[in-house]
Amino acid sequence: MIENLKNLESVANKIKNVIDNYNGYIRVITHHDTDGLSSGGILVKTLFRANKLFHLTVVEHLNDKFIENLDNRYLYIFADMGSGQIEKIREKKLKAIILDHHPPEIKAVEVDNIIQLNPHIFGIDGAKEATASSICYLVARAYGYYDLSSLAIVGMIGDMQYNPFLGLNKFIVNEARDKRYIKIFKDIIFNIYNVEIYKAITYCTKPYLPEHSSEGKVYKFLKELGINPEKKELDEKESKKLVSHLLFYYPNIYDKLMIDRILINHKVSDAFLLSEMLNSLGRFGKFGVGIGVCLEDDECIKIGKEILWKYKKELISEIRSVKLKELKNIKYFEGKKGYIGIIAAILAVDKPVIGYYIDGDVAKFSARGNKELVERGLDLSKVMSLAKNFGGTGGGHNIASGAVVPKDKIYDFLKLIDEVVGKQII
Amino acid sequence: MIENLKNLESVANKIKNVIDNYNGYIRVITHHDTDGLSSGGILVKTLFRANKLFHLTVVEHLNDKFIENLDNRYLYIFADMGSGQIEKIREKKLKAIILDHHPPEIKAVEVDNIIQLNPHIFGIDGAKEATASSICYLVARAYGYYDLSSLAIVGMIGDMQYNPFLGLNKFIVNEARDKRYIKIFKDIIFNIYNVEIYKAITYCTKPYLPEHSSEGKVYKFLKELGINPEKKELDEKESKKLVSHLLFYYPNIYDKLMIDRILINHKVSDAFLLSEMLNSLGRFGKFGVGIGVCLEDDECIKIGKEILWKYKKELISEIRSVKLKELKNIKYFEGKKGYIGIIAAILAVDKPVIGYYIDGDVAKFSARGNKELVERGLDLSKVMSLAKNFGGTGGGHNIASGAVVPKDKIYDFLKLIDEVVGKQII
Repeated sequence: MIENLKNLESVANKIKNVIDNYNGYIRVITHHDTDGLSSGGILVKTLFRANKLFHLTVVEHLNDKFIENLDNRYLYIFADMGSGQIEKIREKKLKAIILDHHPPEIKAVEVDNIIQLNPHIFGIDGAKEATASSICYLVARAYGYYDLSSLAIVGMIGDMQYNPFLGLNKFIVNEARDKRYIKIFKDIIFNIYNVEIYKAITYCTKPYLPEHSSEGKVYKFLKELGINPEKKELDEKESKKLVSHLLFYYPNIYDKLMIDRILINHKVSDAFLLSEMLNSLGRFGKFGVGIGVCLEDDECIKIGKEILWKYKKELISEIRSVKLKELKNIKYFEGKKGYIGIIAAILAVDKPVIGYYIDGDVAKFSARGNKELVERGLDLSKVMSLAKNFGGTGGGHNIASGAVVPKDKIYDFLKLIDEVVGKQII
Repeated sequence: MIENLKNLESVANKIKNVIDNYNGYIRVITHHDTDGLSSGGILVKTLFRANKLFHLTVVEHLNDKFIENLDNRYLYIFADMGSGQIEKIREKKLKAIILDHHPPEIKAVEVDNIIQLNPHIFGIDGAKEATASSICYLVARAYGYYDLSSLAIVGMIGDMQYNPFLGLNKFIVNEARDKRYIKIFKDIIFNIYNVEIYKAITYCTKPYLPEHSSEGKVYKFLKELGINPEKKELDEKESKKLVSHLLFYYPNIYDKLMIDRILINHKVSDAFLLSEMLNSLGRFGKFGVGIGVCLEDDECIKIGKEILWKYKKELISEIRSVKLKELKNIKYFEGKKGYIGIIAAILAVDKPVIGYYIDGDVAKFSARGNKELVERGLDLSKVMSLAKNFGGTGGGHNIASGAVVPKDKIYDFLKLIDEVVGKQII
């Protein structure tokens, strides 16, 4: 790690120099998910402190048309994107800084007017060991802004690169703890929300507790345990009692119930809570509010809390309405646009779960597994690429992947998926 | 006031609607002084909360060339400027919101694609009763963001529209107090800084204490009074003792020593201190840091404190190096670019003070009076316009004005000023 770090630091310093020496307007373009918003927060704070004014843009995708329309009088900073579009950015002759963790088209730090900081260039896995927020933080760190490690950690959680933190992420978390910007301690997941405990349990999706997803039922369950359902924080004894009773229903979730909480230097002081809040804001298109939350604006945090709980309630209601069907090796369901991926991920426990929805003449699929299934051989990227057999397209990662096929091929596609997954998993 | 307020509120609501219904990018352009930066802070917070992303630009002057280069695909918000350039903005066919308190070229709310909120349109004096920050706050208030009244008050102090607050400013201050966003209480000016009291006194310029402007001298002076010079806050008894001893040296400064402090809802919790901090950041070109301070970024506040004290020290050192000369009715001095206006204002006690510096072939003048001198008839605007008699130009306000004349005419100009001021002041 230490050798890699020196190389990363040297690029981060180079980027700091480019920013310091640039006197025109800077345009920051970042992604709308938690990692992207956290990255945006880190960059906004860094640029204010460096006395730079800038334009911030949050987008869902960085496509060719968008790049085509960029004005090459500015300096661009692309966060959580850009490494996959570097050819186009180069073609457009943009002066740009790319801070990305997705696999790069070109594995080089300097390409024409572009300077790229990407963990893959340094042998660090951007899918597990470094997020865009970690990479953006390296630039903030070049300025000495160690406090912004908190937002980096929020991005790591958003991109599911925790439990455990690895590689660059691990280094950042350890350093933040050493420098006392964060505190880590074991606690029950429900304590992160600062709401009545019966609500925290009812709307929990990590882990999803299917037998405890109505307020009335959970209220009664807690009463019977002798725990005040209106309490907003459980003490150690109550936590232990609750966990042991929940494990009776869901034997394998101890690690999800008892987590390493991370207290950060932010008005939303729990890293997991802030990550969930940014996630919900991104999903609801509240990008401006999301950046405002990163900047600790009180009113934005208030809006963030409302949106978070609106999202959690909608999500639980969507999950409860799902009619999960089962083949030999997979489960599947028809769901709603915007929810199938996240619900498939929540429901993927013993088998991979495939969600789909119909959009005009086609069906769009999201397939999700989990770490254990991947360790047993699951590769959903290969599975989803089979869509081409039905005149569609598909691909992605081994743990999470997507596809589109004509809508009259849904069942044929599912049967093929079932067959291939059966061969993959030992 | 109430009738005016309804009209102002109705325009503010119209502006809120324009913002809410606009889905493209918004460009905010504001001024670099305290009022402009406070206005920027109010707008940035409002736009984040309204889930709008935007581009922020801070400028010293809004000139024709700048407007000429603006791209008319955006919605513009001009703060603390624009009312004097509305013809040019109209000619350029920009979609714009103008939030200004300077005298408007066109006294109308709606002009083509422009919507203008300016107190002068409603019979409110923009020089005394309303700042740009008050006007920007009216838009925030249309959203229900009453907490941003704190930044509005900081802008009022920056533009010297306090003591007493009048008109719209007074309404905003009263409402903020009623809603408990601010607390007002009598205190000694030195307590606002949260630094050792000997430093607060040494570097004080409002009021300037010529006999107490070296650290060693002040330290000794406090010791002799039995006040610990290292204390960061004086209690009531100590304050009384200090004030009565200072009044012995400077008989007319009681109102400047014992002030109505305003505690605001901000990490820099004193409105006067925050105003001074933004002022120093604006003067040092630290516009990005200034906005970061408005947004309560810890690191920006740290930088803000450093810059504030750097500025105060430089200012005292400049004042001390001034060789003030005297004619019958005025005082004058040769000083440094960037300092002559502020120093003239500080030194204008019994007579108006004229500062100048030589820039190539010309001399640039700043003339400053005070409220009493203006009440006695002083009109520095008229006085400075006499520059035309020497082939120069000049003008401004009755209390503060400027001129440029060829450098070989300095003394002739000063003699004429002395003569005319003598006729103005009774």
